[in-house]
Amino acid sequence: MKLCMIGHRGGHDKFVWDGLARMPHVRVVGISAGTPEDDVAALQTHCEALGFTPEVFVDYRQMLDQLQPDVVSVCGPFELHAEMAAEALRRGIHVICEKPVALTLEQLAMLRTVYTAARTKFQGWYAGGLHFAAFMNLRYDPAFYTAWRAVRDGAIGKVRLINTQKSYKLGHREAYYQDRATYGGTIPWVGVHAFDWIYWFSGETFTSVYATHSAQDNQGNGSMEMSALCHVTLSHEVFASASIDFLRPATAPTHGDDRVRVMGTAGAIEVRGGQVYLINATTEGEVELPVACERQLFQDFVEHIEGQTTALLSADDVFAVTEACLLARQSADEGRVITFGG
Amino acid sequence: MKLCMIGHRGGHDKFVWDGLARMPHVRVVGISAGTPEDDVAALQTHCEALGFTPEVFVDYRQMLDQLQPDVVSVCGPFELHAEMAAEALRRGIHVICEKPVALTLEQLAMLRTVYTAARTKFQGWYAGGLHFAAFMNLRYDPAFYTAWRAVRDGAIGKVRLINTQKSYKLGHREAYYQDRATYGGTIPWVGVHAFDWIYWFSGETFTSVYATHSAQDNQGNGSMEMSALCHVTLSHEVFASASIDFLRPATAPTHGDDRVRVMGTAGAIEVRGGQVYLINATTEGEVELPVACERQLFQDFVEHIEGQTTALLSADDVFAVTEACLLARQSADEGRVITFGG
Repeated sequence: MKLCMIGHRGGHDKFVWDGLARMPHVRVVGISAGTPEDDVAALQTHCEALGFTPEVFVDYRQMLDQLQPDVVSVCGPFELHAEMAAEALRRGIHVICEKPVALTLEQLAMLRTVYTAARTKFQGWYAGGLHFAAFMNLRYDPAFYTAWRAVRDGAIGKVRLINTQKSYKLGHREAYYQDRATYGGTIPWVGVHAFDWIYWFSGETFTSVYATHSAQDNQGNGSMEMSALCHVTLSHEVFASASIDFLRPATAPTHGDDRVRVMGTAGAIEVRGGQVYLINATTEGEVELPVACERQLFQDFVEHIEGQTTALLSADDVFAVTEACLLARQSADEGRVITFGG
Repeated sequence: MKLCMIGHRGGHDKFVWDGLARMPHVRVVGISAGTPEDDVAALQTHCEALGFTPEVFVDYRQMLDQLQPDVVSVCGPFELHAEMAAEALRRGIHVICEKPVALTLEQLAMLRTVYTAARTKFQGWYAGGLHFAAFMNLRYDPAFYTAWRAVRDGAIGKVRLINTQKSYKLGHREAYYQDRATYGGTIPWVGVHAFDWIYWFSGETFTSVYATHSAQDNQGNGSMEMSALCHVTLSHEVFASASIDFLRPATAPTHGDDRVRVMGTAGAIEVRGGQVYLINATTEGEVELPVACERQLFQDFVEHIEGQTTALLSADDVFAVTEACLLARQSADEGRVITFGG
């Protein structure tokens, strides 16, 4: 299986490297920075370490045409995710793309249309159909995966209420974080994970969203929002909050403080500090679940393509969650509740 | 100092008994159930234990006229809080009232008007003026008080984002919880504490609120909401969430799971499980603060009246917070963002 890689912004290409170490039949045949401002040095270093000697391209389109890879990973500039993914999909190439896969609703609509058309056009090529996924790495995090499995297995009954939290250290941010056009905003960039948890844990569909965000006290980072709060309503009157911030102090023990709390009709489960806490009728007080995830993001993606498994993440999931966070950003910009499909 | 007590619904009269044990100069002179459906047995038992022999009245108004107490505590049926408090205030009697002090915006407007007029009318009677407060007991909880003090002392810089949580066991609920007219709804009844934290910790004013609530899966409890989510915007783009539910499993170690997380420009503080966790530039990682509160709710109320202190809770605080939770309930009922003063 031939893999091409475009860019490494965001750093999630590390999940590709981790996956490649487990799958010797997948080879990196081409790399491209995807943009003149970035370089491929980091990609080259990783390739050397794994024994690959990929061709290097300035123009990623030329790479796709010339090498005709089976799979491409897209980690280019954020504002080019949708375009880069679409270029590959139009050529019948499976895509795994950095999140968010689109920075605007227009980009998302284009990508969805391209994917739908490409799935039909190339349906004869692949048993499982043309695949599209995103680096939603937290689905494969041992704690979140364990909690999700427990919820799916009925540990808390029907899901009624979800609280999610993404809290990051600000640190030093490159210039492209300072501009909505190249960053996309904190709700899509950070919050997409929270929206994914909400969608994934609830098993419901999005109904409406209300959100606010603020760039106050952002230490000179342009329009970058430091705090955001989203209020999501899903089918069956399930409610969910997403609290998002870059206010985690530099002295905190970890970069991020990721949390999910899910309240059901027959129990409560919480992920906090990498641990999973469960209370239900079978527990005495609160119990800590052993955490584990046997699946790896890129391996799951490849094995889905090969028809060996159904990946944790589908293209439809990616589109639904991306739409949700872009509508949340719109809600925050416009100060109003936004209804899905409205 | 003469105290009369009306009713004991909600159980917060326990803060009066605790306070009385510290203040031998305050005597219970009269008690009334406040309504024919309730009785005074519980009040009588407490009075006997403390050596009081109060007169018992069927009509609380008659009690106020006849005994002319300095102070009255109001714990009658929820829907009568505002009326009972107003009757006392009109007579120049200080009032400490169960929360929420009003179940409707009309009741709240009436109570505010009565209090304002009474403060003017009776300003010569009391050094500190006629006082009105509510049983917002969590301001006196060691953990929440310690966290609030730390925030006020600048431990986290400017407050930017607050997440609050009230999660209760459902247990068995009396019939008056099943009807909006006698219960008021879960957002005011439970959520008032969360709105109080938001107001108290932020030091900001309420700007707008959006909320949702659901009575689904409420185990036959009429219109009682089992889950609610509130999204509050305050001055200076400070955002706050209030997650409220009766979904805490019966096997949980405590009745309630009360939490506050406050993110500031220079630190983060959290109250969880009765402990306070702080991270800022002076801490190595996260530190646990020793928790303590030297103030007692009813004692603070009495000492405020006596001019010995400024109570943690003012009448204006009570009105602002009650209005906020009633507008949040309205938002949830009507499905729209509500602007304060709009």
